[in-house]
Order: sequence, then C-alpha cells, then structure tokens
Amino acid sequence: MHAVGIDIGGTKIAGALVDEAGTIIQELRVPSPISDSGSMVDAIAAVIDQLTAGHQVVGVGVAAAGFISADREIMFHSPNIAAWRNEPLKSRIQEKTSHPVLLENDANAAGWAEFRFGAGRGSNSMIMLTIGTGVGGAVISEGRLLKGGFGIGGELGHIVSIPGGRDCGCGLKGCIETYASGTALLQAARDLAESSDSLGARLRQLNSEHGLLTGEHVFQAVMEDDPGALKLISELGEQLGTAIGSIFVPILDPELVVIGGGVSAVGERLLEPIRTSYSKSMPAKGYRPELKIVKAQFLNQAGLIGAADLARQSFS
Amino acid sequence: MHAVGIDIGGTKIAGALVDEAGTIIQELRVPSPISDSGSMVDAIAAVIDQLTAGHQVVGVGVAAAGFISADREIMFHSPNIAAWRNEPLKSRIQEKTSHPVLLENDANAAGWAEFRFGAGRGSNSMIMLTIGTGVGGAVISEGRLLKGGFGIGGELGHIVSIPGGRDCGCGLKGCIETYASGTALLQAARDLAESSDSLGARLRQLNSEHGLLTGEHVFQAVMEDDPGALKLISELGEQLGTAIGSIFVPILDPELVVIGGGVSAVGERLLEPIRTSYSKSMPAKGYRPELKIVKAQFLNQAGLIGAADLARQSFS
Repeated sequence: MHAVGIDIGGTKIAGALVDEAGTIIQELRVPSPISDSGSMVDAIAAVIDQLTAGHQVVGVGVAAAGFISADREIMFHSPNIAAWRNEPLKSRIQEKTSHPVLLENDANAAGWAEFRFGAGRGSNSMIMLTIGTGVGGAVISEGRLLKGGFGIGGELGHIVSIPGGRDCGCGLKGCIETYASGTALLQAARDLAESSDSLGARLRQLNSEHGLLTGEHVFQAVMEDDPGALKLISELGEQLGTAIGSIFVPILDPELVVIGGGVSAVGERLLEPIRTSYSKSMPAKGYRPELKIVKAQFLNQAGLIGAADLARQSFS
Repeated sequence: MHAVGIDIGGTKIAGALVDEAGTIIQELRVPSPISDSGSMVDAIAAVIDQLTAGHQVVGVGVAAAGFISADREIMFHSPNIAAWRNEPLKSRIQEKTSHPVLLENDANAAGWAEFRFGAGRGSNSMIMLTIGTGVGGAVISEGRLLKGGFGIGGELGHIVSIPGGRDCGCGLKGCIETYASGTALLQAARDLAESSDSLGARLRQLNSEHGLLTGEHVFQAVMEDDPGALKLISELGEQLGTAIGSIFVPILDPELVVIGGGVSAVGERLLEPIRTSYSKSMPAKGYRPELKIVKAQFLNQAGLIGAADLARQSFS
C-alpha cells in the first residue's frame, strides 16, 4: 500500500504519494499560506485529499522544519511559520483527514529517506548533513532515527565548531551552520567578488554580468573549476570535515556520512575536501575503522520520501 | 537470578555478583597481570569461577576501557593492556567459562548502571560524563545504549572543544578531556601552587606539607571552599557545561546529564558551574525544554553493576 509524504516549507507545501520502495508515484506542490495556522492546516489537508483520492494509503507523514515534541504531537517552534509556537500540529492536521498522521522534523525525514532508499541503504549507523540555506542534520543510530529526549536531537548544524565565532540565528556564536551553509558560501563568494583579490576575478565577472551573485553563479564557477570558487567550497568542506572528525565521530561513530542539500550538487569538489579534513581530525586515528563520506541520492524529494516511509513504519 | 559483572582496570580486576535490582551481593578485587593477555584472561576466569561457585548466574558482563568492535567480539585497542590489539577478547574469556559472556566498554557500562539503577533511573535519553583520570562518556538514547556504527561511539571526552588547544593522548589538540579531567585539574592545581598568585596560598600550603599535591589535597581544598581550588573546579565545570550546551545538546538532546567519576565527589561545587555554563551555551534557548544535570549515584562500582545488567538484558 502507498503512503503519503508532505513537506512543509516556507514558500510551498509539497506532497507525494510514495510506494513501499520509496518511489514517488504522484507529486504535487502548492503555495504555503504561512501567515496563519488555520489556512496552513487547510492547505495541508487539501493536498492530502488530492493525493489520496482513489488510493488506499497506510498513513500520512508530515515533515516540517522546527522543534517537535518527543511524542511528535506538538510543534514547539518553527523557523518558517511564526504562528506555530507550542502548536498541537499533529491533532490539528489529524482532525482534517481520516488517515493516521505522523509528524517529523524535515531534516530527519530527509535523512531517513537516504537511509532507507538512497545513499545510506545497507548502513546501520549514519548521519546526514543537508547543506542548504542552513545546515540540517539527521542521525540514524543502529537502524533507528535518533529523536532525542525532548524530540529535538540531530540538530547537527548548531554545534559550535568555532567558539566565539560568527553570530548564528540560534543565539550562539560559531555554529557550523554559519560557516558551512549555502548562505555562508554565497556571502563568502560575494565578499570575494567585491574584494580586489585576483582569486575573485571570475566571481567578479559573474557579478557584473548579473548584477548580484546568486547560488547558481557560485555553482557555475565551482563547476568551471574557477580557483576562487574552488577555494571557497574547499574551505566549506574543511569546516564540515573537521566537525565530522572531531565532534560527530567520537560521539556518534557513524559508518557513513551522507552530504545532501543544494550545495552537495557540486559533488566531489566538495566531498574531497571534507574527506581530507575528516581524516586529519578524528581521534585515535589508526586505531579505529574509518567511515565513508558520500553524496545524497535524493535532492528536494528526500523529505517527502522519508516522511511517507516513517508513516508506513509507524502505521503498518 | 544473579549476573556477574567484571571491570578490568589497569591495576586491578574487580568482579561482583549482582542481583536483578543492581545490588552487589558479593565483590572481589585482584591485581591485573597486565603484562600478558593469557594471564589476564586466566585471572578474569578465576574471578568468574570464584563469584559463581554455588550460584546460578544468567551470564557474565565484562567491562574494559578501549575500543570494542560493533559485534562486541574484538578489543581493537585498549589503553591499559598493550597486548590487546585486535584481540578476540570475548571468545578468549568465553573459552574459560561455561557462562555466556558479554563485552562492553567500561564507561558505557557505568552509564548503563546509572540509567538503570542510579541517577538516571526513569529517564529515557541521558548522557554520562565520568570525570576521572580522563573523561569517559556514555550515551543512552531513547532507552538504548548507543554503541555506534563501529562500536566505538559515546567517546564524549574526545570531542574537540578548544580547536588547536592542548595536546591529547588521542592525537588531537583541544579535546575536552585535556581541560576537564581529574588529571587536568591536578595539573592546574600544581601550577597554581607553584605560581606566586595569592589565590594559590592554600594549595601551596598543602603542597609544602605533603611534598607534592595529590587529587585528595585538591578535593580537600575544594571542600574547604578555598578560593583558588574553587576557581579551578569552576573553570573545569565551565568547560563541561559549554560542551554540554553547545555540542551534546544539539546532537543528542538528552533530558539528563549524569556527572560521575572521582572529581564528581565535590558535588554542587562542580555541578553549579556546569549548570551555569550549560545554560549560556545551548542553541535556541527559550525555545526548547531544558535538561537536568545531576551527580552520579554509584562511584567505583558503576562499571560492575552496568556490565552485570547488560549481560542480564542480553542473556535472559
């Protein structure tokens, strides 16, 4: 039987009907009416209705950014939807549909999709780092999604990797997210383009052609092997590799690290510097097996696929 | 039925017969013949024989410092017993006894004892930090001991908390262990005693009375509320609290942190600075529930009790 996955973003609600092998049968996107909670819930319910019309489904998994209570009933706080503060989101959605509903953090759902059907298939303990606007995280520990005591574990982007470093939206300074997100990369590229550094030549050129550098221009420059853009992606990878070796490995000891999100599209140009720094940063090197670092298989659809599968696991 | 716990240290082998409630019925300690592996295994087997004479037991749990394979068969590397390098330790012990044998890392076994019968009873997700010669760690995630993909997770003392900081025995620089262990505390106390700082007056006095400061003298000075010793314990607590808030919380989100090991004997004089720093260091403060930080209930016996209970869980 199929399951439904819903991924609630700041600008759109995505929904999909997903089969047992994690394949998307049908997909649908509508704008997010983020201004009020009632309209959001109605829009989610409408997506569920549309996807389930004429289909039997085992349940609905809803993925959203934010802190969700350990019992997966309450959205404590969501960065995208201000109205969701201590919101009983699961029951609000459940009231609008006859299918059983499961709520999960979006980065966790994406990690679960990779673990079950993607780059993490066959592994037992893995972490996923989603390098997008921020740095999302998910931890699969011995076959189970780590939720944490209050439900908000696996926030791998908010470890402090540089004490006293850059200001982070979470209130701390020096979170890995402030150095290794797509946002940080774009800012570094704009800074380089605006500097007089000769390494910034190509980025400066793209900047003057287009008015303002975007993530796509940075991606283009990286794929052209522009030395300036490569240096920036390499510095980003170094931050991630250091965090993997010196923080995630001693605590979680994963066999596998999956790198996803928009920035991961540059592939080996990012993975190689991550591997090099990881290898220099792990404790007791030579006395322990070494993990693998690979690119995610799914991109935008990971949250949908993972949410649907978590619902399947829970309700079948 | 009882179970047997064995705790292998660098200087002694401890063994205990432990009941279902985690109570030690009988305990026994013999010297560790650490120079060769055969004698160690014989000595372990002799302790098991002596404890089980006249008793039915469900199994034997053996706790030892070191990296143990995910299947709990192989000791990859032990800091105390040089001969144990990729040693099939479980089968070596199993050959010498008729009871089923389970092998576990000693800090993990100690954390499990606190979770089941001690300060962590009733919790679901907790971490334990054992502040002794080094800093040991254990992670209980949603009721299960986190072992890691290769079996060597939960090494909480070897996260890098100060990048580029003090040299650590693991090969890295700046591990939390180099700032927050009993060894680091004693070194800081000796340095203060040898300085001309007026805060070192009491430690200097103890030093000249006894020839050389020991951990007990530092403990004594802390319990006398000597300002110099309190400053050092407070700095140690600050390091731990910062690591808890800025590293362990975002990744693991425990409800409870249990502080054990010899240094934890100073109690609130250590716990208060840990709590204060934790509270300043967590991401998204105000948007998340806050954890509790408490002292361990068991001291030296935690490893024995935890190893016995893990054997019981596995074999009954």
